[in-house]
Amino acid sequence: MRSVEWHDGVLRLIDQRRLPHEMVILECETPEAVAEAIRTMAVRGAPAIGAAAAFGMALAALRSPASDRAALLRDLEAAARLLKASRPTAVNLFWAVDRMLRRAADEGLEDPQAVREALVAEAIRIAEEDVETNRRMGQYGATLIRDGDTILHHCNTGALATVDYGTALGVIRTAHEQGKRIHVLVDETRPRLQGARLTAWELLQLGIPFTVIADGAAGYFMRKGKVNIVLVGADRIAANGDVANKVGTYTLAVLAREHGIPFYVVAPTSTIDPNTPNGDAIPIEERDEREVLEIEGVPIAPRGARAANPAFDVTPARYITGIITEKGILYPPFDLHIRRALGLEQEDLRDVVALRGL
Amino acid sequence: MRSVEWHDGVLRLIDQRRLPHEMVILECETPEAVAEAIRTMAVRGAPAIGAAAAFGMALAALRSPASDRAALLRDLEAAARLLKASRPTAVNLFWAVDRMLRRAADEGLEDPQAVREALVAEAIRIAEEDVETNRRMGQYGATLIRDGDTILHHCNTGALATVDYGTALGVIRTAHEQGKRIHVLVDETRPRLQGARLTAWELLQLGIPFTVIADGAAGYFMRKGKVNIVLVGADRIAANGDVANKVGTYTLAVLAREHGIPFYVVAPTSTIDPNTPNGDAIPIEERDEREVLEIEGVPIAPRGARAANPAFDVTPARYITGIITEKGILYPPFDLHIRRALGLEQEDLRDVVALRGL
Repeated sequence: MRSVEWHDGVLRLIDQRRLPHEMVILECETPEAVAEAIRTMAVRGAPAIGAAAAFGMALAALRSPASDRAALLRDLEAAARLLKASRPTAVNLFWAVDRMLRRAADEGLEDPQAVREALVAEAIRIAEEDVETNRRMGQYGATLIRDGDTILHHCNTGALATVDYGTALGVIRTAHEQGKRIHVLVDETRPRLQGARLTAWELLQLGIPFTVIADGAAGYFMRKGKVNIVLVGADRIAANGDVANKVGTYTLAVLAREHGIPFYVVAPTSTIDPNTPNGDAIPIEERDEREVLEIEGVPIAPRGARAANPAFDVTPARYITGIITEKGILYPPFDLHIRRALGLEQEDLRDVVALRGL
Repeated sequence: MRSVEWHDGVLRLIDQRRLPHEMVILECETPEAVAEAIRTMAVRGAPAIGAAAAFGMALAALRSPASDRAALLRDLEAAARLLKASRPTAVNLFWAVDRMLRRAADEGLEDPQAVREALVAEAIRIAEEDVETNRRMGQYGATLIRDGDTILHHCNTGALATVDYGTALGVIRTAHEQGKRIHVLVDETRPRLQGARLTAWELLQLGIPFTVIADGAAGYFMRKGKVNIVLVGADRIAANGDVANKVGTYTLAVLAREHGIPFYVVAPTSTIDPNTPNGDAIPIEERDEREVLEIEGVPIAPRGARAANPAFDVTPARYITGIITEKGILYPPFDLHIRRALGLEQEDLRDVVALRGL
C-alpha cells in the first residue's frame, strides 16, 4: 500500500513510528486525527505531510454538518488552521491546505455537496501528482548517478516520506531500476532514526545495497573517498535557494563542499516557498527533548539531563550543487532559476532549467 | 572512587557500559580480565586505557608463577601482547605497556619479587601522573575559556576517560572551578553514546550547566553563533599533529573551521606517537556493527540491515587550532612543536610552547 491512501472516505496511513518492527495502519476519519498523526510523526516527510493534510481538508468537508456553502467554508477554514498548526517547517503542508481552500472557494461549486466532492477529488489529485512528480525527479536525478556510485543519503525521503516512490530515494530507486550498480550509505539520522528505521527498511525491500552509519561517521567516509554524491530531501526551500531539511543536512553540505562532492537537494516545486526570502526566515521546529534523551522509550542519558532538539537546519544555497525538481534540475543562481521554475518570470523554462545529461 | 583504582592487588574499574543507569564496579585480577575490560569498553578513554593496561601488567607480574627473572619477563611479554591486542587505535595503551616492560627490564631489579614490586609501583605512578597531567592541562586550557562561553564537547573525556579529572572535560572543569559561567553542548556521540551517557552524568555531578544534542545538530548550533570553542580529546596524535579521536571529531573540526570557531585537542603528551608520521598511518578500529544497529540492546534497524562502525576518525592537523598538553599549548607548526615538546630537539621548551594568556 501507499504511505498515504484514501479508502472509502477514510485516510489510511502507514504508522511510521512503528516501523521497522511492525506494520500498523492508522485510519483517520477527521481532520483532528490527521493533524495529530502529522504532529506525532505517524506520517512524516514533506510531500506525505502535504498529501495527508489535503485529505484532512477533504475529511473536514465530509464531516462538516454545514448545510450551506458559507458555513462549510467556515468549517474548512477552521480545519485549515488546525492542520497548519501541526508542524511549522515543511511548506508542503501549507501549500496543500491553501490549494484545498482555493478549490473550496471556487465560485463554480454551488452547494456544499459539490464542494465536498470537489475537495475529495482535489486531494486525490494532489496525491496522484505527487507520485508523478517523484517519478519525474527520479528520471532527472538519475542522470547524475553513474554505475558504481556510492550515494550518501540522510533521513528518509522514500515512498514513506511521499505518497509513493520518494524524492531523493526516488532518484536512487530510478538509478537502480536503470541497472546501475549503486551503494547507499544511510545516515541513521538521530534523534528519530528515520535512516536506520525507514530508509533501511525501504532499501531492503527494493534490493538496493546499503550500509547504515552513525551520523558522525559521514565525514570519515567522505575523507576516505567513499562518497560520490550526496542526495537529500527538503522541507522548505526559500526563494534564494536556502534549504531547510532534517537536522544534520547542513553538516553534510559543509562536509561535501570540503571534499568536492556534489550535494543535491531533491524536492518538488511545491516545497519551494517564494514568500520565504531566505533560510533565516524559515521557522525551525523545536521538538520534545525526550526524542534525544530516550531511544525507543529507553532512557540513554541520566535523569536530570536536558536536551535541545531542533528538528531541522538550514543549508545556505551556496553549499548546494543543484536542486532536482519535477521541472528539471535547477542550478545557481537559484533565486533567478527558482522564480522562473515557479513561472514568476516570463522567460521560457527551457532556457533556464539545465537538464544535465538529458 | 576513581575510574581506575588499585586496591590490595586487584584492579577496580567503574563499568562504563552500565552508566548512567547503574554504578557497577568491575574487579580484575588477571591481565586477561583487564584486556577483556578494555576490549568490551567497560573501561574506555585513552588515558584510562593506558592506566588500566599498566595495572594489567602489574597483575601479570603478581599472578605469574615464574621463579626466575627470565621466566617472569617472558610472561610479561605475553601479557603485553595480549593487552596491546585489546584495542588498536589509542596509543596510550602501547605507551603504558611499553613503559612497564622497560621498567621490568631494569637491570637493577635482581629477582622476580623486586620486579613485581617495581611494576606495581610503576603502574601506581602512571595513574598518579595521569591525574597530575590532567590538572595541568586543565590550568593551561582554562586560559582559553572566557566567562559566558559555550563549549562544544564530543564523546567523554572526563574523570571516566582518565584515571581522574579528565582531559577536555578537565579544562571545562577547571574553568568552572575558576568561577567562569560556562555552558556545555554535549554531543551525544553515537554509536556508543558516551556523551549522553557519561559526559552528561559527570557534568550533572559537577553542577556544570549543559545541554545534550544529537551529533547532527552541532552544525545547527555553530551556524546560530552559539558555540565559542570546541574541545575534544584524542586517542592518538601523529608526529605531524594529525589527530585520531572518536568518530565525529573530524566533522566537528571541519564545521568549526567553516565558522571560525577555535578547535582545540586536549591530550597528554603520552597520546602523541612520534613513530606515527601522520593520520593515514593510524589504524582505525572497526567495531561490531551491532553497536550501530542496536541501542541498549534494542534493535533500531530492520533485520537484515548491515552497518559500518569505524570507532575513530582522523582530523588533519590543518583543522586544529592548538593541542593542549601538560607541557603547555602547542600551536602550528605542530610537527616542530611536537618534536620539541617530546624532547626530540634541543631547544628550550619555553621558546616553542606558546602559553596563551599565561
